[in-house]
Amino acid sequence: MPMDDVEIIYDEHPKLVDPILVEGLPGVGNVGKLAAEHIVSEIGAKRFAVIFSRYFPPQVIVQDDGTIKLVRNELYYWKREGGKGPDVVLLVGDIQGITSEGQYILASRVIDVCVELGVRRIYTLGGFGVGRMVEDPRVLGAVTRPALVEEMRKHGVTFSKGEPGSGIVGASGLLLGLGDINGIPAVCLMGETSGYFSDPSSARRLVMVLSEVLDIPVDLAKLEERADQIERITSKLRDLEQGEKDASREDLTYIG
Amino acid sequence: MPMDDVEIIYDEHPKLVDPILVEGLPGVGNVGKLAAEHIVSEIGAKRFAVIFSRYFPPQVIVQDDGTIKLVRNELYYWKREGGKGPDVVLLVGDIQGITSEGQYILASRVIDVCVELGVRRIYTLGGFGVGRMVEDPRVLGAVTRPALVEEMRKHGVTFSKGEPGSGIVGASGLLLGLGDINGIPAVCLMGETSGYFSDPSSARRLVMVLSEVLDIPVDLAKLEERADQIERITSKLRDLEQGEKDASREDLTYIG
Amino acid sequence: MPMDDVEIIYDEHPKLVDPILVEGLPGVGNVGKLAAEHIVSEIGAKRFAVIFSRYFPPQVIVQDDGTIKLVRNELYYWKREGGKGPDVVLLVGDIQGITSEGQYILASRVIDVCVELGVRRIYTLGGFGVGRMVEDPRVLGAVTRPALVEEMRKHGVTFSKGEPGSGIVGASGLLLGLGDINGIPAVCLMGETSGYFSDPSSARRLVMVLSEVLDIPVDLAKLEERADQIERITSKLRDLEQGEKDASREDLTYIG
Amino acid sequence: MPMDDVEIIYDEHPKLVDPILVEGLPGVGNVGKLAAEHIVSEIGAKRFAVIFSRYFPPQVIVQDDGTIKLVRNELYYWKREGGKGPDVVLLVGDIQGITSEGQYILASRVIDVCVELGVRRIYTLGGFGVGRMVEDPRVLGAVTRPALVEEMRKHGVTFSKGEPGSGIVGASGLLLGLGDINGIPAVCLMGETSGYFSDPSSARRLVMVLSEVLDIPVDLAKLEERADQIERITSKLRDLEQGEKDASREDLTYIG
Repeated sequence: MPMDDVEIIYDEHPKLVDPILVEGLPGVGNVGKLAAEHIVSEIGAKRFAVIFSRYFPPQVIVQDDGTIKLVRNELYYWKREGGKGPDVVLLVGDIQGITSEGQYILASRVIDVCVELGVRRIYTLGGFGVGRMVEDPRVLGAVTRPALVEEMRKHGVTFSKGEPGSGIVGASGLLLGLGDINGIPAVCLMGETSGYFSDPSSARRLVMVLSEVLDIPVDLAKLEERADQIERITSKLRDLEQGEKDASREDLTYIG
Repeated sequence: MPMDDVEIIYDEHPKLVDPILVEGLPGVGNVGKLAAEHIVSEIGAKRFAVIFSRYFPPQVIVQDDGTIKLVRNELYYWKREGGKGPDVVLLVGDIQGITSEGQYILASRVIDVCVELGVRRIYTLGGFGVGRMVEDPRVLGAVTRPALVEEMRKHGVTFSKGEPGSGIVGASGLLLGLGDINGIPAVCLMGETSGYFSDPSSARRLVMVLSEVLDIPVDLAKLEERADQIERITSKLRDLEQGEKDASREDLTYIG
Repeated sequence: MPMDDVEIIYDEHPKLVDPILVEGLPGVGNVGKLAAEHIVSEIGAKRFAVIFSRYFPPQVIVQDDGTIKLVRNELYYWKREGGKGPDVVLLVGDIQGITSEGQYILASRVIDVCVELGVRRIYTLGGFGVGRMVEDPRVLGAVTRPALVEEMRKHGVTFSKGEPGSGIVGASGLLLGLGDINGIPAVCLMGETSGYFSDPSSARRLVMVLSEVLDIPVDLAKLEERADQIERITSKLRDLEQGEKDASREDLTYIG
Repeated sequence: MPMDDVEIIYDEHPKLVDPILVEGLPGVGNVGKLAAEHIVSEIGAKRFAVIFSRYFPPQVIVQDDGTIKLVRNELYYWKREGGKGPDVVLLVGDIQGITSEGQYILASRVIDVCVELGVRRIYTLGGFGVGRMVEDPRVLGAVTRPALVEEMRKHGVTFSKGEPGSGIVGASGLLLGLGDINGIPAVCLMGETSGYFSDPSSARRLVMVLSEVLDIPVDLAKLEERADQIERITSKLRDLEQGEKDASREDLTYIG
């Protein structure tokens, strides 16, 4: 079987009602990936397809039990109780495409899947790196249609002129652009983050907004725990730094 | 709908008389882009097609109202009063292709469009970076046929041996080369510019020449305004610099 | 004859019984390549196909007799006495693919060959670089199925959580990943190595393990000789370095 | 007309007797290009095809008369008096392919042309950079068949173990490798050169050898003139340098 440039291998072909796609792949502060994977795990979404591609890096991941996993993206679904939808499809994974052309081709194939599944709306999740520590991370938005701005504002999403100034790069941007061309309204939600490390605190805010938007209760405990861990580490680093500064000051006083 | 490598989406298929293509995409000093977009806006040209491509960067631009725009090139047309032509087609956009192969494929597709529309001549617009401030920017030319040299000189275009020494890279060069292969005479007009910033002053000179060549009156007020803004900023910078030099000299005198 | 992107030219089409693929291409410490080429040479495996590809570098190697060799991979086979198998197929070569896409396409074509030949298992050989001199190199493993972990442990292969942390990149990784997708169980054996130079000592350990696993007696004399050469060189370097240190100490004593 | 990835546009389809291909494209010291273009010009070879390609850089060259030329390779032929051959085909040009894949595809297309024309042998010309000034440049060789070594030695070509150690990269290497696969014997002739500048002196030696090998008298005057120019420049530079050293010595004497 010759391998296609993008190989989508289905576990099953679920029938979904008015599905909504949520995408969270690696990126700035890994905010989108953390948020999407948290939702997959908390709502018990079921995997229905794996995506391999020659546009991914030529790499396998060695897992703790000694088995390997070829780098991949995965599609999950979750059916809402009552069978009247809207159901949810989630796109998560280890990596994004590593060339511009690969990014376009992969996003285009995901849009094909959306069209087949009858996806009604797309939410892409990402981080918005600001290059400084963020106490109370905002969730910024970008949309394909003006009417979506007001709708998202009601859920606490910030639309701020000039943010992000550089546009949105990668899957989170392309799924909006290609979604729009294919008539699927789409929203990008970006959790504000320093961008210095993997940021569960920013991801937590993304999940809060998305949980409200999608009307899915999502337990936040695990993300909060990870956010607390990170907070303890960065706070210790701050103390150490402060200690050094104080020490220098004492030294100076002494000299003075 | 699987996405083609270059996707041209038409708003309409205009019937044009002896059309002339004018290309102005981002490049040195953004001179070509500024000039072409100014013409589009001043003559009220109408968009008839959008070009998306996997050879563009995988990026959406976030606009001031919070909506996004997948990076793109656009084609506009303008019909001359009286219906006897020559009409004008304009190619403008956010970006150029980001690989050499992409550049060739995109330019080749534009030439296909030219052939379909019956384009009789191509003008590509660009900047000619000289690496120093330019008081009175020249418009340099390069052409596909010797006879065009004299024709362009009559409109004040400079042909100067060894300028540009490095040739012309990107869409402005390729549309000449591929135009020539396809039997379409073509001219590249390059506005002299420092290349240090976006240069409306150089773009203004390009538009003056092109307005005469195409016999289209184009109001220059907006470009002049932007050129004045830039002039005020650079002049302030020069004053500051001069002030510092004078201050140093005073210091030296004092010491002396 | 237009050249295909991957051109496999067969010397012959051997009929093999339950064949096992062993791959050893250039990589960290050249451990995999040294080990696989040693086996090819010691068991007298016969070449049956050459692989050329535009995904390899555009380069010919000039050999000692003045003739050239276009860079390539090669496939060898070895038939076990008695005709009941399992027979062995070996993949060796000068280079690996030089782009990610090329790596995927080449590995995918090798898997096609495996399927055609009825390959039952794949062993890929590589180096595991630790960035320091290694006295007694371990052989680390990674596998496609949990049951293979125990099987390999019995042959002295180490499975160690977090090693290698960065996963396995290139042909050695992809043949596992793509083998798994195609239902072929696969094992990667990695010889521990400093990664600073071509490491026959680490390759020797790989061959020892593989010789036992495949039940093929392989004479190790030549690898041991090369390992001794390297040992003599590095030991001299250590002595020189130590000498300098001692000299400095004497100097210091003298001064003291 | 959509543009092919490699577009060969024929001026004419010459009928040739036992033709020999000579390739000289840009490379180390431009030795191959200088030599091949000198031969084209001196024997009055006639152009019969132009090669454009998306694997070349997206660039046009602006010529002294203001007209442009899309970067290209060109094929010339020369028919030997008497009509009994062997005739000569020459491949020259501004550039080589700029990706590895492009290099393979272009060389493969040239081999297709060779097969169509019935080419009996290929000579590729290049420079062998040694990183120091060369008084009396050797011509080094590499061949596809052992018998060619002796044949070339008779014409003064040097075969030296380990030279070039890094193999032959680009068109000069690939045409040998792909020629060999297609049953066309091939020779690479490399003029020794510092590699610091365009080297007509080394090219002159290449032409001398090739003129004897092909039995074509080629006037060397123009190459000798250019070599003398370069010699005058580098000799002045040496004098200047020496002068500075002497001056320093005088200074030192003075101080002493």
